Amino acid sequence: LDRGDAERLRELLGALHPADVADLMGFLSADAREELVPHLDPETLAEILSELDTEIREEVLEHVPSATLAKAIGEMESDDAADVVDDLEADKRAQVLAAMPEVERATIEASLAYKDETAGRLMQREVVAAPQFWTVGQAIDHFRREVDDLPELFFDIYVVDPSYKPVGAVPVSQLLRSKRDVPLAQIMEQVTEIPVDMDQEEVAYIFDKYHLISAPVVEPGGRLVGQITVDDIVGVIQEEGEEDILALAGVSDAGRDADVLGMVRSRLPWLLLNTVTAAIAASVIGAFEGEIEKLAILAALMPVVASLGGNAGTQTLAVAVRALASRELSAINAIRTVSREMVVGLANGAALAALTGGVIYALFGDLRLTLAFGAALMINMFVAALAGAAIPLALDRMGRDPAVSSVVFVTFVTDFTGFFAFLGLAALILL
Amino acid sequence: LDRGDAERLRELLGALHPADVADLMGFLSADAREELVPHLDPETLAEILSELDTEIREEVLEHVPSATLAKAIGEMESDDAADVVDDLEADKRAQVLAAMPEVERATIEASLAYKDETAGRLMQREVVAAPQFWTVGQAIDHFRREVDDLPELFFDIYVVDPSYKPVGAVPVSQLLRSKRDVPLAQIMEQVTEIPVDMDQEEVAYIFDKYHLISAPVVEPGGRLVGQITVDDIVGVIQEEGEEDILALAGVSDAGRDADVLGMVRSRLPWLLLNTVTAAIAASVIGAFEGEIEKLAILAALMPVVASLGGNAGTQTLAVAVRALASRELSAINAIRTVSREMVVGLANGAALAALTGGVIYALFGDLRLTLAFGAALMINMFVAALAGAAIPLALDRMGRDPAVSSVVFVTFVTDFTGFFAFLGLAALILL
Repeated sequence: LDRGDAERLRELLGALHPADVADLMGFLSADAREELVPHLDPETLAEILSELDTEIREEVLEHVPSATLAKAIGEMESDDAADVVDDLEADKRAQVLAAMPEVERATIEASLAYKDETAGRLMQREVVAAPQFWTVGQAIDHFRREVDDLPELFFDIYVVDPSYKPVGAVPVSQLLRSKRDVPLAQIMEQVTEIPVDMDQEEVAYIFDKYHLISAPVVEPGGRLVGQITVDDIVGVIQEEGEEDILALAGVSDAGRDADVLGMVRSRLPWLLLNTVTAAIAASVIGAFEGEIEKLAILAALMPVVASLGGNAGTQTLAVAVRALASRELSAINAIRTVSREMVVGLANGAALAALTGGVIYALFGDLRLTLAFGAALMINMFVAALAGAAIPLALDRMGRDPAVSSVVFVTFVTDFTGFFAFLGLAALILL
Repeated sequence: LDRGDAERLRELLGALHPADVADLMGFLSADAREELVPHLDPETLAEILSELDTEIREEVLEHVPSATLAKAIGEMESDDAADVVDDLEADKRAQVLAAMPEVERATIEASLAYKDETAGRLMQREVVAAPQFWTVGQAIDHFRREVDDLPELFFDIYVVDPSYKPVGAVPVSQLLRSKRDVPLAQIMEQVTEIPVDMDQEEVAYIFDKYHLISAPVVEPGGRLVGQITVDDIVGVIQEEGEEDILALAGVSDAGRDADVLGMVRSRLPWLLLNTVTAAIAASVIGAFEGEIEKLAILAALMPVVASLGGNAGTQTLAVAVRALASRELSAINAIRTVSREMVVGLANGAALAALTGGVIYALFGDLRLTLAFGAALMINMFVAALAGAAIPLALDRMGRDPAVSSVVFVTFVTDFTGFFAFLGLAALILL
C-alpha cells in the first residue's frame, strides 16, 4: 500500500481523524514512516504533528523538507506551532523560520519567548474580541464577514475596552439565544483573567475550580494577548498527574520518552541518593553487630518492622501529596491532618503489633522478643505517619514540589527508625 | 456577620463565584455552617452544592429542609442533581424525591439507574438537537424562541435523524460564522458517540485523544439520550490520576474523605498483605541464621541490596503504570518496553555495584564479600526491572487495575530476591 499508490493513500488518511493517523504512524516501522512522510501535504501534516508522540515527532520532523514544514506550521494554531518549532534542531529551526512569512514568524518567536509550562506557552494568540458598545447583531454580522480571521473553534467572545483590556465574556451559546438588538455589555459575564506568566498547574487549578471552557490571557498591563481553552488544560492535568506519580517514585521528568541512556540518567541520581540513605540505615545495624551475632533471629525480624513502617509511610505520603495537589490540604488544616494521620498510624500499629506479636510468641515462645518487636513496630508506624504527612507539607511550605522523591526520604526515616527501635529495644530488654 | 443581617449576607454571597462560596464554607466551623445554611435560597444552594467537598456536602444536606432541597435540585443540571440525590440518606432521599415534580423525579431516577463511573452517570440529559433539514437561520430563530428549554451553556448542536440518532454535530462557533441559508447538514462535523455504559476512564481517554468539547451519549439502540461536556471530564481525569497514586501506595479508594475509622479500614488490608509478604522475606533470612551468626556484617548489608532493588522496581513500576494509563504501553510494544527496562536495570545495577563495591572493599578489605554484594545487587536490580514492568502488564492483561498495590508486590519480589541472592552468594563464596 505504501509504495506506488500515493493518491489512494492520501484519500485513506483523509478519512481518518488526525489523532488516529498519528496512532497509526506509531505502529509503523521507522522505515515505513520515512517513506510515508513525503506523501503528506502541508495541511495533513499540520493536523498530525501536534498529535504525534514526542519521540516519533522528532523523527518525522527530520524527514520533512523545511519549505513544507514552514507551510504546515503556518496552518497550525499558534500554541501548537510554537511547540513544533521548539522541538526542531537549531539549524533546521532557522531554515523553517526563514521560509515563513514575517507575521507568522513574529508570532511564533513571541510565543517561544514565554517560559515553558506558563500560560504564555499554553495560550493561542487567536482570540475573538468585540468592543463593549456592540450589539449581538453587530457581533454576528461581523463574524459572518470576517470568517477567515476567526479561530477554527471558539467558545467565548471577549468584550474589551478601548485599551484592549477584557471587561467580560459572552459564551457563544449565550450570543445565540439572545435577540439581535441586545448590547453585549448586557449579557456578558465576569471573566477570570490569566496572567501570561502564570504556571500551567495554577492555570489548570483555576479551570477546574471555576469550570472554565476558555479564559483570556493578559499581559502585565492588562491587555488581552491570547486565550487558553479547556482542551489544552486536559493535557496539562494529565501531565501533572503523571509527573506526580513519577516524581513520587524518584524518576526525573527528563526520562519520559527517552532512550536507554536517558532512562538511566533520569533514575540513577535517586538511586545514588538511596544508596547513601541505605548506607546510613545499614550503619545503624552495624552498631548492633554484637547483638545480632548473639541472636540471629533479630536480623530476620528487623526488616519486617522496617517494611511495614515503609508501607504505612508511603500510604500516608500518597494521601498527603494528592491532597496538596488538589488543594484540599493547606496550612489551615495541616495540623488537623497530621494529627489525624498519627492517630491512624497508632491504630494500625496497635492492630499489626497484636497480630504479629501473637505469631512471634507462638513461634518462639519468647515474651521479651515479642515485646521488643511489638513496641518497635508501634513506634515505627507512628513515625511513618508523622514523616509521611510532614515531609510533603514541609517541602510544599518551602516552595518545592512535595512529590519529588518523597518516597526515598520517607522510607529512609522508616528504615532508620525500624532498625534502631527494634535492635535498640532488643538490646535493652533481651541481652 | 452571620447573625442578624441575613439580607446583607445573601448579597455578599451573591457577588462571589459559587466555587469560592464553597471554599469559604469549608473554612467555617460546623456550627457556623449550620447557622448559615437556612439563609441560602434554593438557587444559591443549587450552585454551591456541586462545588462542596463530599464530607461538608453531606453535613450541609442534613440541615437543609427537604422542600428547599427539592427546589434546589430542580435548578441543577441533571448530572449534578443525580450526584446530590445519590449522597442523601435513604429516608431523606425519599422525602426529597416525593417533593419534586414528576418529570424531574423521573429524570433523576433514570440517571441513578446507570452504574457509577459510567458515561450515563456523567452525562447531562439537557442537549441541543436539531433535525437534518434545518438551516442555520431556522436553528438560530428556534433557539431565540425556546430560550427557557436550552441548557445554560452548550458547545455543539447535535444534528439528529428522524429516529433521534445523532448524525453530526455543529459547533456553536461554526453556526455563528455561517450564513442563515446554509443547511446544518452541510456544515456539520462527524461526531464521536459515547455509549451510555462506557467507563468514565475510557470516556476521558476519548475526550483527550480527539480534543472534544462535548460529545453525544447514545443508548444501545443509537438514540441520543444526553451529552458529556469537557468540564466534567476535567474532574474525571483529576480523579483517575489521584486514584492511581493512592492505589500504587496501597490505599483503597474508600478512605479518601473518611474519618479515622474509614482511614484505618482503607489502609489496614494492604498492611496485612504486606505483613504476609514481609514474613515470607523474613523466613528467607531465617534460613541463613547460621551464616549471619558467623558474620553479622551480612545482616547490615542485606537491607542495602533489598532497598536499592525496591527503589529501582518502584521507578520502573511508576513508569509502566503511567504508560498503561496513557495507553502508550500496550501488548504491541510490551516486549520492547520490558526488555528496555531490563537493560536499564542492568546498567544501573552495574553502576551501583561498582560504586558500592568500591566502598565495601575500602571499608572491609574483603574481596569475596565485595563480590557477593555486587553480584547480588546486579541480580536484584535486574529482577526489580523485570518485576516492575511485568507485574502491572500482567495485571492489565488480566483486566485488573495495574496500579492497585503493585508497590507491595514489587517490593516483596525485590526484598525476597535481595535477601536470598546476597545471603545465598555469601554462603557459597564466603563460608
